[in-house]
Amino acid sequence: MSKLTAWGVEGIGEIIPGMQLGDIIVEACSGEPNGPLLDNDVLVVTQKIVSKAEGRLVEIDPDDPLSHKVLVEEEAVRIVRRRGDLIITETKHGFVCANSGIDLSNVERGQAALLPIDSDRSARRIRDIVKAKLGVNVGVIVSDTFGRPWRKGVTDVAIGVAGIAGVLDLRGTPDALGRVMQVTEIAVADELACAAELVMGKSNGIPVGVVRGADAAWFRESSMDEIVRNPSEDLFR
Amino acid sequence: MSKLTAWGVEGIGEIIPGMQLGDIIVEACSGEPNGPLLDNDVLVVTQKIVSKAEGRLVEIDPDDPLSHKVLVEEEAVRIVRRRGDLIITETKHGFVCANSGIDLSNVERGQAALLPIDSDRSARRIRDIVKAKLGVNVGVIVSDTFGRPWRKGVTDVAIGVAGIAGVLDLRGTPDALGRVMQVTEIAVADELACAAELVMGKSNGIPVGVVRGADAAWFRESSMDEIVRNPSEDLFR
Repeated sequence: MSKLTAWGVEGIGEIIPGMQLGDIIVEACSGEPNGPLLDNDVLVVTQKIVSKAEGRLVEIDPDDPLSHKVLVEEEAVRIVRRRGDLIITETKHGFVCANSGIDLSNVERGQAALLPIDSDRSARRIRDIVKAKLGVNVGVIVSDTFGRPWRKGVTDVAIGVAGIAGVLDLRGTPDALGRVMQVTEIAVADELACAAELVMGKSNGIPVGVVRGADAAWFRESSMDEIVRNPSEDLFR
Repeated sequence: MSKLTAWGVEGIGEIIPGMQLGDIIVEACSGEPNGPLLDNDVLVVTQKIVSKAEGRLVEIDPDDPLSHKVLVEEEAVRIVRRRGDLIITETKHGFVCANSGIDLSNVERGQAALLPIDSDRSARRIRDIVKAKLGVNVGVIVSDTFGRPWRKGVTDVAIGVAGIAGVLDLRGTPDALGRVMQVTEIAVADELACAAELVMGKSNGIPVGVVRGADAAWFRESSMDEIVRNPSEDLFR
């Protein structure tokens, strides 16, 4: 029987530009009551600390609540929708989200954090450090918090992956009654990001989660190309 | 430290119209290696078995792969997008999804399963039976598998809730640096549905999952009104 466990990693501390997140995560996990990282654990790392570690911080006017809006347009390749102050953009990475993924929470006043340039690379770097230091193969997901059409509230999604499937292709797999399934591509990276969000929360300063118990078959080379839908195949752009 | 655990409930068996799911789930959970259900466990129950138990099955021509398309339009209040055989509709419940939530997997050949008429009520009934039989207060989520714009693959979402928040309102809560958060409404029911999907899968016939370790503050009266966005507030309809 499969069983999944998720917990937040304590003791990460404040991240500043130039820090090597892989080292910090390995160090923080070493004292965890859940024991050291194991093969096929999934590390979920929030975008905000990745952006901070990689120096993706921009000075903004702290007294102007809309001062980051010019950055939003700079980081966008397309304005998908706009209503009042709300701007839904497509970013250079192909993500469609509010404000090009730029927000001001959990950064110092007077700063805005941009998305990492290449979150797959950020994830891979963390994965490589864990492998080098501990000898274990983990999956790494860089997660961010996106809204969605039609439903209220936000959920976490993957914006970078390494060593763990983005989308699981079950085409051709029979369902429980032996018929070929219609719904066949499961966005496991996004579901793992959601599971981790539940233990990290938004306000308690826990920017890294571990999910243990994911199916061993999901661990493989991967990239966000699996998840980002081509605009030409999209009915909503 | 918060820790979340999720597992699939074995031994549910085939569901036919008229069965009382609450009874079946209580029975199946009683022999679980994870022990009996506890206060503040979340039961995630897939739409398919709720629809079956409630007799939401319709005969279709088994030799015509598009024979359910007329049902799709009957169950819709709005066609949101259409491309070839793909129809994205708004259902009577306010859900926007492919084919009005009708699909043919995990039902007998020659049948299609419609969405439950009122999945909040379905969830509440299960919750009430668990309370009556075991004396414990669980949250119940009826889950379904939806696609989304902009991203490939599907994830599970809540289509019915009872006793567990749909959306958690953190407005006014300070972030880790003491600033009021911008992203403040977390769709925890959808994230819980995702966590459970990871242990249930689509092909292994496990239609119920348990998530243990959710924050006690999330357990309260709830309904899908928290999650379904009003079309007038929606930029994508």
